[in-house]
Amino acid sequence: MFVTHLECSRCGVTYEPERLHQLCAACGAPLLVRYDLAKLRGSLNKDRWVQRPANLWRYHELLPLREPEHAVSLGEVITPLLPLTRLGNALGFSRLFLKDEGLNPGGTFKSRGAAVGVSKAKELGIQKFAMPTNGNAGAAWALYAAKAGIEALIVMPADAPVIPRGECSIAGARLYLVDGLISDAGKIVASLVNDQGFMDASTLKEPYRIEGKKTMGLEIAEQLGWELPDVILYPTGGGVGLIGIYKALIELRELGWIGEKFPRLVAVQAEGCAPIVKAWQEGKAASEFWENAKTIAFGITVPKALGDFLVLDALYKTAGCAVAVSDADIIASQGQLARTEGLFVCPEGAATLAAAKSLLATGWIRPEERVVLLNTGTGLKYPETVRSTPPVLAPGESPPAGGK
Amino acid sequence: MFVTHLECSRCGVTYEPERLHQLCAACGAPLLVRYDLAKLRGSLNKDRWVQRPANLWRYHELLPLREPEHAVSLGEVITPLLPLTRLGNALGFSRLFLKDEGLNPGGTFKSRGAAVGVSKAKELGIQKFAMPTNGNAGAAWALYAAKAGIEALIVMPADAPVIPRGECSIAGARLYLVDGLISDAGKIVASLVNDQGFMDASTLKEPYRIEGKKTMGLEIAEQLGWELPDVILYPTGGGVGLIGIYKALIELRELGWIGEKFPRLVAVQAEGCAPIVKAWQEGKAASEFWENAKTIAFGITVPKALGDFLVLDALYKTAGCAVAVSDADIIASQGQLARTEGLFVCPEGAATLAAAKSLLATGWIRPEERVVLLNTGTGLKYPETVRSTPPVLAPGESPPAGGK
Repeated sequence: MFVTHLECSRCGVTYEPERLHQLCAACGAPLLVRYDLAKLRGSLNKDRWVQRPANLWRYHELLPLREPEHAVSLGEVITPLLPLTRLGNALGFSRLFLKDEGLNPGGTFKSRGAAVGVSKAKELGIQKFAMPTNGNAGAAWALYAAKAGIEALIVMPADAPVIPRGECSIAGARLYLVDGLISDAGKIVASLVNDQGFMDASTLKEPYRIEGKKTMGLEIAEQLGWELPDVILYPTGGGVGLIGIYKALIELRELGWIGEKFPRLVAVQAEGCAPIVKAWQEGKAASEFWENAKTIAFGITVPKALGDFLVLDALYKTAGCAVAVSDADIIASQGQLARTEGLFVCPEGAATLAAAKSLLATGWIRPEERVVLLNTGTGLKYPETVRSTPPVLAPGESPPAGGK
Repeated sequence: MFVTHLECSRCGVTYEPERLHQLCAACGAPLLVRYDLAKLRGSLNKDRWVQRPANLWRYHELLPLREPEHAVSLGEVITPLLPLTRLGNALGFSRLFLKDEGLNPGGTFKSRGAAVGVSKAKELGIQKFAMPTNGNAGAAWALYAAKAGIEALIVMPADAPVIPRGECSIAGARLYLVDGLISDAGKIVASLVNDQGFMDASTLKEPYRIEGKKTMGLEIAEQLGWELPDVILYPTGGGVGLIGIYKALIELRELGWIGEKFPRLVAVQAEGCAPIVKAWQEGKAASEFWENAKTIAFGITVPKALGDFLVLDALYKTAGCAVAVSDADIIASQGQLARTEGLFVCPEGAATLAAAKSLLATGWIRPEERVVLLNTGTGLKYPETVRSTPPVLAPGESPPAGGK
């Protein structure tokens, strides 16, 4: 293991790595895992890396497990980075890609965080955790917890999509709904952590989930032959994936595997819940709680993210931006991806296409740039976003000729 | 390309490969793709094979495309072969594995058939196809067709699971429901093929889908280091996967990459639709139409499979068997896989665990044997199979202490 310590993302206080820490005891900010990159720079060969089994554990030197054999795995894969040639040409992009996280176990990128987070929790001897969720993270953590033999208590909003509920239940998690938002679920979890000794598995309140999400950045770099794209668009709720991708790039740069120039990172939010966009427009270092948050892209309905300042820092440092898109544009983009590229993506993923189109229109993205859309999950988990009212035939009856 | 010809699976009549053929013109049986395996034996190195990109196209010498670049891809992966250590130990298996096809694009193994079938259709210049489906195959073909720019007309039973309907619709397919079974959908498609010039993409009525399914067998062999398992259990509706796996093994044997001893292949069906089981029990070469077919495992509700004689032949030749399981055992097995292994599988996949348990109990499977369960898809597409009725909390309210 190459972990040297944990470090507060705000005040820099350090912590020893081999016991559970949640937020910084000094200032309450998230902790980040630090590695001995100088030592790794001498010993790790990136050409050998690509010959390892095709899953996120190939990056184990940059992951926090003491022993790679402690990995709790549900069969993670390297998710595809797909060229969207036809759609790109139609829209005026010459090099548009989509990283399809829908192929993870459970159908979303949340599995990456859960794979690493639950594996490390198990290695640390944790027996139970509690977490608030908009659905998919809870489902992923519940399933990995089942595999690990750890108890999971999950709290999600009552109007979250129903499929992740079923995943939590069938995995044997203790599941509760709350008549409110993920912020209300978070308060309930905080009380459980104080009163009943659960580990707090909330976004960024344990330092390992981000390490799992980081592998998206490692994969994108590897899949593009260590030539980074110009722009990466990421649907931003809690923002851990964006923070993770940025952390991955910094680590790769310290390893000397990539150059100095980073992609411009774009935080995509829905107009109905856009606290990061507002803060970015105002040039602020942190966001404010977004009142009456509501969007079809439920996974990014996060009114105030604990890691907002890290997201904004990544946007400022990479000369990126933050963009809000409407639910109507999200649904239109979802349909466009399916009809022209055969990809049924989740609304959050579709939001990145909507944002890319608007940034191309304003000239912020140039047609010749290499652009990566990050689709965080499969549309299968959001069947309610598709209207399907096919005609019903009697046996023996034929559809009309022609059509389409 | 190493394809030499197409060959009738029943009467042996041969056809030239580079134009569309459906069933054998002489006897009406399915056609199989034949390769110049003698030539490949000299030129193909299996150790180099494993270094190629981790998707089914690594096997392109054993696939029917003239040009590998013609592949229509949605980002296929090599699906994981997971050791079920904890569940296996609990049940008395020492080496139980699950091949998880839920990680394919669209969440099911149907993507393999669609990837190869649609790619070859496009290479042959096909502009439109029609197909009957129980849902998932239609969804997969609709999405690959969208990517390929081919028109898809899909007919499925009105009581098929709803999620694949949405996939067909968002992909822009022409979708019809029929108030009946897949056999009724098949009759409607047959009339369209005759009257309106559609390619018939029904199971086994075009020779290429099976080539895609075959890659499951290639992957299992490769993932086990070319040491085949003792038993493979496969949920059997149309049976193309089982026929494909058997075909893969025969081809690998001719290449000299595996030994003479094949795994015993097991066709798993539901008690509510078990024509292959009945035929196998009676020692027959073909099945009879199963009246009033009904099971929760909708994907294997196929009352009479066109390739039944090929499935039965594979069972007889490998000293395999056919087993029917109840819907109650399917649901119980689905829950067991989730709670102990963190895997949310489809009912069809769960049926293979139910069957394995019953075959272990009768002694047909011995505890020390290497057993592979083939899970054909993710449980995400069958949310109705999970009961989830979590308690609802008010904001600020806490769940009770203790209890799981």
